[in-house]
Amino acid sequence: MKARVYVSMKPTVLDPQGQTICNALHGLGHKEIAGVRQGKYFEIALSPDTPRDSAVQLLDSVARDVLSNPVIEEYRVDLLD
Amino acid sequence: MKARVYVSMKPTVLDPQGQTICNALHGLGHKEIAGVRQGKYFEIALSPDTPRDSAVQLLDSVARDVLSNPVIEEYRVDLLD
Repeated sequence: MKARVYVSMKPTVLDPQGQTICNALHGLGHKEIAGVRQGKYFEIALSPDTPRDSAVQLLDSVARDVLSNPVIEEYRVDLLD
Repeated sequence: MKARVYVSMKPTVLDPQGQTICNALHGLGHKEIAGVRQGKYFEIALSPDTPRDSAVQLLDSVARDVLSNPVIEEYRVDLLD
């Protein structure tokens, strides 16, 4: 079983890295770009005998406690197959 | 118009960061986790008057030339309207 966890800054938190990328793209002439925000994602493989229910719980706790900082970041878990 | 660009290591390239996360999760007792690979993603906002065709082209060239290193990374572009 595979899952993807997406972690990004909360919308209210400044993202200087995304801002820098946006400025660089403007400098390269891509004026159509109105804004960029950067996040990270994790592709997680689970052992195939993990029941789906416990996989959802496990991934949620891993995303909340280990992969993201809940003070400034939000996360989203996508379970594939 | 919004788009997401996902950049990750090619499957043949070692991902020490993902490996470290995987080891840490095992250390925390999450033995169900078989593997972790880390990537990054970019949420890109385009000005609303950009035609869809040129948006696809623009995003592809930005993803290839600026956001990823095509020697070791691969990318995927998702256009959300």
